[in-house]
Amino acid sequence: MTKNKKRFIAVIGGGRCSAEETKLAEEVGRELARQGAILVCGGLGGVMEAACRGASSEGGITIGILPGESRQSANPYVQFPIVAGVGYARNLSVVKSAQAVIAVGGSYGTLSEIGYALQGGIPVIGLYTWSLFRNGQEDNSIILAQSPAEAVNKALNLATK
Amino acid sequence: MTKNKKRFIAVIGGGRCSAEETKLAEEVGRELARQGAILVCGGLGGVMEAACRGASSEGGITIGILPGESRQSANPYVQFPIVAGVGYARNLSVVKSAQAVIAVGGSYGTLSEIGYALQGGIPVIGLYTWSLFRNGQEDNSIILAQSPAEAVNKALNLATK
Amino acid sequence: MTKNKKRFIAVIGGGRCSAEETKLAEEVGRELARQGAILVCGGLGGVMEAACRGASSEGGITIGILPGESRQSANPYVQFPIVAGVGYARNLSVVKSAQAVIAVGGSYGTLSEIGYALQGGIPVIGLYTWSLFRNGQEDNSIILAQSPAEAVNKALNLATK
Amino acid sequence: MTKNKKRFIAVIGGGRCSAEETKLAEEVGRELARQGAILVCGGLGGVMEAACRGASSEGGITIGILPGESRQSANPYVQFPIVAGVGYARNLSVVKSAQAVIAVGGSYGTLSEIGYALQGGIPVIGLYTWSLFRNGQEDNSIILAQSPAEAVNKALNLATK
Repeated sequence: MTKNKKRFIAVIGGGRCSAEETKLAEEVGRELARQGAILVCGGLGGVMEAACRGASSEGGITIGILPGESRQSANPYVQFPIVAGVGYARNLSVVKSAQAVIAVGGSYGTLSEIGYALQGGIPVIGLYTWSLFRNGQEDNSIILAQSPAEAVNKALNLATK
Repeated sequence: MTKNKKRFIAVIGGGRCSAEETKLAEEVGRELARQGAILVCGGLGGVMEAACRGASSEGGITIGILPGESRQSANPYVQFPIVAGVGYARNLSVVKSAQAVIAVGGSYGTLSEIGYALQGGIPVIGLYTWSLFRNGQEDNSIILAQSPAEAVNKALNLATK
Repeated sequence: MTKNKKRFIAVIGGGRCSAEETKLAEEVGRELARQGAILVCGGLGGVMEAACRGASSEGGITIGILPGESRQSANPYVQFPIVAGVGYARNLSVVKSAQAVIAVGGSYGTLSEIGYALQGGIPVIGLYTWSLFRNGQEDNSIILAQSPAEAVNKALNLATK
Repeated sequence: MTKNKKRFIAVIGGGRCSAEETKLAEEVGRELARQGAILVCGGLGGVMEAACRGASSEGGITIGILPGESRQSANPYVQFPIVAGVGYARNLSVVKSAQAVIAVGGSYGTLSEIGYALQGGIPVIGLYTWSLFRNGQEDNSIILAQSPAEAVNKALNLATK
């Protein structure tokens, strides 16, 4: 019986990102790998690439679920590219394949992923990402973290399903 | 040549909703129909059903793009049920099929739709729905409306693509 | 209560097709419209366009579920374009949205749609299309028709769900 | 740079299957693992489970792209479960994620996958599976194999993209 007991954590964020976000995402990837978690992401550049690079540098496993039609679009640190073939509906696949999600910055695509994760009861940890108000009231569903290490620890503690 | 010149407007919101949201959504549907627009929605209950009921009462056309496997899940006011067969990836189909989106209240599924719409450059009009802050700064991409009539007018004015 | 009692029939086939297939598809579309059925298709050229043109010429309703990102890719006879945004996963949406499917010729994309329809218990009528052998034994699930009128009659008789 | 140079081969077939198909699929899995290929499949039972069990027994890597909403539906030999969240549109993801496809027996779902693979130019090797006639003419796109070893060798030779 080889069923994987490792935890699957998604890292989401922009396909382009700032130098600061790159640093955060890379450190999130490194820390996930050190703790033995498997990194799931959208497989492209920006935050996704930085997180994969970090995980790879520590010998971690990286899965990239791509929006396009070709495995060639994966960043060089994706070990297992999934060519979903369903366009940006792959955003749903990224979060559903994870037991917790860490959002680093991010734009509207990231927002769609946060929505899907929270709808599905998958914990979302936020590092300098979206905050949400619903009809004027703050929604605290995104769990804040101040550092990559804190984000990873919170994600792993909540990755129970 | 029968290509449709009518405008396609999506109404998004919760599958369950408050009495106040029901009233707003129904009036949005009525006003869309009066102005000759075609209503696209997720085809289920709550805001979707109220909007379809409103549109139907004024003789409007309603399209419901369903998440499940059966046309039977459509609310009774959906004239053209689309059984997407792709689960909640249908959220992407709802907004992509519209030239503008009106969000009435809504929870996390609605948030995923708002994310997809804004990512795709499709205008989003908000009636008592989410407001967004990115890394502490307000994001004003959701265009506020105070009434169904205002929401519909803004949506139709922006539905240029 | 405006729930649609009309039958939804999908016409599937190649995005490019022969002159003979064009003629067949157009007549299928015309006959569906005459009998009051709603035509669902993939919205593009070839068989899809010919069927829509036929249906339109008789005042029928046409729905095109598109693979791409833009409503502009619909053929000119699609009245209600659905921009699924899920690439060729829209093949699943086309057949799931129909109560019976008529295949006119067609290549491998059509084959994927036939597979989905038969898997979902949706009747498939074939006009000069694929025939199937499973492990050397003929599979007679595709119901043969010799003319557009016969195909439409068989489809409507079987469109009971 | 950790980009994966291993070949990704999909094994497709029924969620239920005969004892003979089980044996074939298990041996296909074993042989793929021995040759260092990564096995992609739909993650469920039948042929998928047998192939994963075979690959696991030789220390191979197995990826299962699931149709449902939960990783719990994966068979026990799936090492990396992908929860696509898009229903049977995941059939498209299974074949698109592979450089060649081996079909063992199979029913209509398998047929949809064969259609998608051939449409996408992905080689399909058949072991006692569908054979195809288009408008009365045999279509030889499915490459026949008489044994698991032959199927795997042909798949690996053709997995060049």
